[in-house]
Amino acid sequence: MAKIKVELKERSYDIMIGCGNLPELASLVRQEKWGREVFVITDPLVNDLCGDTVRRGFKAKPVTLEVPRGERFKNLRVAEKLYDELARLGAHRDSLIVALGGGVIGDLAGFVAATYMRGIGYVQVPTTLLAQVDAAIGGKTGVNHPKCKNMIGAFYQPKAVFIDVSTIATLPARELRTGLAEVVKYGLIEDADFFKFLEANAHHLNTKAFEDEGTKRAALGLWQTIVGESAKIKALVVEKDERETKARMVLNFGHTVGHALESLTRYRAYNHGEAVAIGMRAAAKIARRLKLLDEEVEARLTALLEKLGLPTEIAGLPAKKIVDALAIDKKVIGGRVNFVLPERLGKVVIRDDVPLTLVKNVLNEMGAK
Amino acid sequence: MAKIKVELKERSYDIMIGCGNLPELASLVRQEKWGREVFVITDPLVNDLCGDTVRRGFKAKPVTLEVPRGERFKNLRVAEKLYDELARLGAHRDSLIVALGGGVIGDLAGFVAATYMRGIGYVQVPTTLLAQVDAAIGGKTGVNHPKCKNMIGAFYQPKAVFIDVSTIATLPARELRTGLAEVVKYGLIEDADFFKFLEANAHHLNTKAFEDEGTKRAALGLWQTIVGESAKIKALVVEKDERETKARMVLNFGHTVGHALESLTRYRAYNHGEAVAIGMRAAAKIARRLKLLDEEVEARLTALLEKLGLPTEIAGLPAKKIVDALAIDKKVIGGRVNFVLPERLGKVVIRDDVPLTLVKNVLNEMGAK
Repeated sequence: MAKIKVELKERSYDIMIGCGNLPELASLVRQEKWGREVFVITDPLVNDLCGDTVRRGFKAKPVTLEVPRGERFKNLRVAEKLYDELARLGAHRDSLIVALGGGVIGDLAGFVAATYMRGIGYVQVPTTLLAQVDAAIGGKTGVNHPKCKNMIGAFYQPKAVFIDVSTIATLPARELRTGLAEVVKYGLIEDADFFKFLEANAHHLNTKAFEDEGTKRAALGLWQTIVGESAKIKALVVEKDERETKARMVLNFGHTVGHALESLTRYRAYNHGEAVAIGMRAAAKIARRLKLLDEEVEARLTALLEKLGLPTEIAGLPAKKIVDALAIDKKVIGGRVNFVLPERLGKVVIRDDVPLTLVKNVLNEMGAK
Repeated sequence: MAKIKVELKERSYDIMIGCGNLPELASLVRQEKWGREVFVITDPLVNDLCGDTVRRGFKAKPVTLEVPRGERFKNLRVAEKLYDELARLGAHRDSLIVALGGGVIGDLAGFVAATYMRGIGYVQVPTTLLAQVDAAIGGKTGVNHPKCKNMIGAFYQPKAVFIDVSTIATLPARELRTGLAEVVKYGLIEDADFFKFLEANAHHLNTKAFEDEGTKRAALGLWQTIVGESAKIKALVVEKDERETKARMVLNFGHTVGHALESLTRYRAYNHGEAVAIGMRAAAKIARRLKLLDEEVEARLTALLEKLGLPTEIAGLPAKKIVDALAIDKKVIGGRVNFVLPERLGKVVIRDDVPLTLVKNVLNEMGAK
């Protein structure tokens, strides 16, 4: 297993990345004394696919708490049911939560861990590409509010992020692509070489290789590299700014417009990566109009996103409503909307002075009404 | 204003203690740049008594969010209403919450501050003796779960604790006494001289002096000393152990049995200080039976509590049920109930090996069935 340390003083932890390593989680928990009783929070599908593999290694069978699958169940009601269950089962401060699943499970279970008895330990075991490269790293936990995604939450670091990349071989193509949007983001904001690596390997970055056991092994090797590089970049940014006061904002590249699109369409029309892909292209176009970025990078970003099968056009949504939806986002500070804008491959800048009419024009150019 | 620093690295803050200083909060917030928009969370009674005094100093009138008064409203439902209101009013990461009220308001508003947009700034402005000497200091926030008090919460430090002792002149006698139980606790666990000071002044520690404007001023001087000494001890203990892993447990002196009594009677029969008073006496009696404590200290503790008008007997509750209720408490670790037991004035020890039959006998001795 590869180890990447997230250095946050007394809250430091490791991201561990392997392939087929899920059965080793139990011995790690035992060895590190992370919890006397283990509660696995997961959804029915992930439980079917990996639940037994995770549980097998534990001497005392962990209790599994299933929550319904889907972003719309990441809410305070479901969190409350988990509190009830944990209380009923006698979970205490020395209990451990294992968040086994995608970003929704990680955010929800992480938030419950952050707030049950004022915080108990938890391990992130992300099973989707999106969660492995992004959501599970950095201690952001939370649930959705009808008005705004992740509006209720906490910064609360896990004991570890434990990644088995073999889990992504079970993902549907669209689920894999949503993670790829964040992977592209890392290249663009921090690492030009990684961006070029993605351009060179784009034709391999899909689910085709998983159809055959022979090609699957080679493909998982490539994915291990991609997850590792992404996790490294995410860890570095988080270390600089644990609570997202400034430096961490670069991770919001593509997310300003992306979140507005998601909330406007009630998280139904786009999944997160699709919205971010559109948002990244929008940010590149805004940067172009502000003369921060040259045409070539915008074109390469668009080409890479398209090669990966991610959307780059807005299908007929009203531009004005998207702009209105920007204003409620957490990234708004002092009434100003923050945009993360690319200057070149591997370098972005944060600007809070983008005229909203310019944003509207860009959205129109991309197909908004 | 006296200042006591709570040293918690990047989360350090001051406890400020004055008399008639509420109107100065606004300029402090402005000077320290603690928030662009201010939201005062309070209850109707406190709002009537001090709301205008607090709001007056602000140039931009703070929005006031009232929640119903009482411990039973410290729950996730009410927190959710506050999230809704904050979102509707456009509260952002740079907004500030002022928690104006007793411990219920402080816990609830602190929890909302801890979890709204993953944490925004807040100032504790405790208006009861209990909140001034205890709840407002140390960053414990939370709401109640039907099964356990403060089961859902977070450790989240405020920007400051801003205390105006003149607010306690408005408290009913029983409210003042509930705070006194915690004051006695500080003397017993950490400071024998302070305990003796309380014994010497016990006859002044009631609401009588507040009935006359002349004696009120002198009395408030005495209270300022008491609040200051208590806050100092609380701050020292919190500094040693921010997240209550070990050292902070001494603050739970009297709280093991106290919490069990409160939850068993659904927070109706006893207020917090009353339950803690009984719990402290129970702890002293347990310590006596374990030969940790001599008779004199137990007698002095009981005498002081009685002089202050606090209960020291259990009125007919079933001892077995109290013992059962101990097991669900947050202080239970690895299935063992932790007791904080006095050894002498100013010195306690934590024990997790107290036989529950011994506890039951002590409860019977104190009037339990």
